[in-house]
Amino acid sequence: MGKPIITLTTDFGTRDGYVGAVKGVIKRINPDVEVVDISHEVEHFDILGAAFVLNNFYRYFPRGTVHLAVVDPGVGSERQPLLIKSQDFFFVGPDNGIFNFVLQNETITDMVVLANKKYFLTEPSVTFHARDIFAPVAAYLSLGIDVNEFGPTAKECLKLVIPEPRLSKGKLSGEIIHVDGFGNLVTNLTAESLRSKKITAITVGRRRIERLTGSYSEIEEGKVGALIGSSNLLEIALNQGSAQEALRSRVGSAVTITFK
Amino acid sequence: MGKPIITLTTDFGTRDGYVGAVKGVIKRINPDVEVVDISHEVEHFDILGAAFVLNNFYRYFPRGTVHLAVVDPGVGSERQPLLIKSQDFFFVGPDNGIFNFVLQNETITDMVVLANKKYFLTEPSVTFHARDIFAPVAAYLSLGIDVNEFGPTAKECLKLVIPEPRLSKGKLSGEIIHVDGFGNLVTNLTAESLRSKKITAITVGRRRIERLTGSYSEIEEGKVGALIGSSNLLEIALNQGSAQEALRSRVGSAVTITFK
Amino acid sequence: MGKPIITLTTDFGTRDGYVGAVKGVIKRINPDVEVVDISHEVEHFDILGAAFVLNNFYRYFPRGTVHLAVVDPGVGSERQPLLIKSQDFFFVGPDNGIFNFVLQNETITDMVVLANKKYFLTEPSVTFHARDIFAPVAAYLSLGIDVNEFGPTAKECLKLVIPEPRLSKGKLSGEIIHVDGFGNLVTNLTAESLRSKKITAITVGRRRIERLTGSYSEIEEGKVGALIGSSNLLEIALNQGSAQEALRSRVGSAVTITFK
Repeated sequence: MGKPIITLTTDFGTRDGYVGAVKGVIKRINPDVEVVDISHEVEHFDILGAAFVLNNFYRYFPRGTVHLAVVDPGVGSERQPLLIKSQDFFFVGPDNGIFNFVLQNETITDMVVLANKKYFLTEPSVTFHARDIFAPVAAYLSLGIDVNEFGPTAKECLKLVIPEPRLSKGKLSGEIIHVDGFGNLVTNLTAESLRSKKITAITVGRRRIERLTGSYSEIEEGKVGALIGSSNLLEIALNQGSAQEALRSRVGSAVTITFK
Repeated sequence: MGKPIITLTTDFGTRDGYVGAVKGVIKRINPDVEVVDISHEVEHFDILGAAFVLNNFYRYFPRGTVHLAVVDPGVGSERQPLLIKSQDFFFVGPDNGIFNFVLQNETITDMVVLANKKYFLTEPSVTFHARDIFAPVAAYLSLGIDVNEFGPTAKECLKLVIPEPRLSKGKLSGEIIHVDGFGNLVTNLTAESLRSKKITAITVGRRRIERLTGSYSEIEEGKVGALIGSSNLLEIALNQGSAQEALRSRVGSAVTITFK
Repeated sequence: MGKPIITLTTDFGTRDGYVGAVKGVIKRINPDVEVVDISHEVEHFDILGAAFVLNNFYRYFPRGTVHLAVVDPGVGSERQPLLIKSQDFFFVGPDNGIFNFVLQNETITDMVVLANKKYFLTEPSVTFHARDIFAPVAAYLSLGIDVNEFGPTAKECLKLVIPEPRLSKGKLSGEIIHVDGFGNLVTNLTAESLRSKKITAITVGRRRIERLTGSYSEIEEGKVGALIGSSNLLEIALNQGSAQEALRSRVGSAVTITFK
């Protein structure tokens, strides 16, 4: 058994010391926990983006890892502070949809509204719950405090509306749900949904792609291609360049597959 | 007792491996120390910005933490390399004002000019004291070496001139001292100084704000508001947007409070 | 003896959770290893840039450190996944030139093509070898698995063509090989090659610099200067500014030294 782990995913950036405060609070409560930075560069207020990041990494961590995720434009409003326990992991953050994919993919065993002030910093601010509520709760969790100590069971939690692909005769219509740092356009079309189909074209805006390729480097230089990316979703990509810049597509742009 | 901790705050960025060298030097001297990144994205040469970051996080860490902070345009000049010990923490970095808020807020017990080459890398460069002087000193400190081993007592140290608010009849005049990563405008007006006052207006440039709100999300959408931020200072903010972009204000811009 | 260390150098950025997945995979295989971020901000697809970063920090780490370095535009193509062992360190990444300076500066004892799927994630993707191949191999290495367990000896490996300075009568001609985050222009001219020479001028584009200075702060304000930087290479720099912006130079621009 290694040390307990808390991962951090936020939109705080690092240049103000906000993340530093979060780390300090955690280490003071549990000096033996290991704090692992995932990202502090989620786009400001982009809850769906943070949900996507979380979904890309959380399952690879050891059992018992606490995932702290805070993109929280509603801090200080009536949105609930949340703790979710699945079979393998703990998730701590605001109830605003940030745990959307987790709820889809994990078997949830407990969902708790953070209410027990014993596990908050004294006098929590209304502007910085990551430091004053979520960080101490994550640290106490990593010390083995029981989930139900932190507050009452949450009756429901907020879900984001993620667009679903539509299947019609010879056609599968999806859209771009994420643009990654390389400019790859990640769609909501799963590898699964394409498996048995004989694709005749993949269309993004005015661009028509003939076929799926296996890897980025197989795409002809300077051309746009399509492949199944590391999240098992269809991606539109450019070999050594940004498909986003080439196509000027964005989250929400349509992607259509035609097949025989 | 957890492992000793060294925090890192710099303007180095990470894309040149400079921070990597600092971390390597520390781990080679004390493999058991935990190195915690705070920020490497302080604006280049922005000593006041680094001082502000430091002030936002240092106090949350466990007692005995070594805070290494290096924004150092004067590296290799006659500016002194410094070690400051307060009741709870150690601070290591250049004597250029970076520890300004620490000196204001901490009870200082020792202040030492780093001079004992036994605790430097052999043949320190004149361009990279973070790697050659500050990192090894921080590592040896974390091993328990006595503060006075590192050099003679510093007689004085450099302080930055931080603007003080001015109070006149019915009016409190302050200014913006920091713009955070969200574009929130942090002023030098403390929660304390506003506590008993019946505010009639908060003015920034041509913008007039009627009253303080409690949280970012209480600000009317698309409008500029004012609140007490997580550092207990008055902040000018936009709900889910950048007040800095909306107002084109900057560090030094005037903020005036009128009250009854 | 401290815990084993794995350092991470990539061009992934952090905002997609890709680095998070790499860290999770490592911690699950070896919970006791310490993962140290070096940079995830290498310019996309800039193999030489990553090689340069690696060269700036790797040697400062404790003996036995595993350096994982992935800038990998050819992922999924026929480029080999590589493990290099030198007297003091392990290096894991793609065979595309990223270990160029390591091969120049280290005594290599083993070079292995990663082929043993026992040490890969099950069903490795073709787009994300950092997560599926390099991370698990690094983690198993940190557990003490023998180098030759991972695959057959590599017969050769790819080297980048790094321009060599040319020496003629009274003249040394080099070029810029790296622009650092401060805008300092790092050349391929070593401190060694300049040591005994009486320099009469250093020329970059149309700019003529009279002499070497010792530190950045000795350069006259607003003027361009030249000095030996922390990598023991000649650098062109501006005091508290970006020489790159001032001179509009780039990687490949000529730098000429004339001497008596």
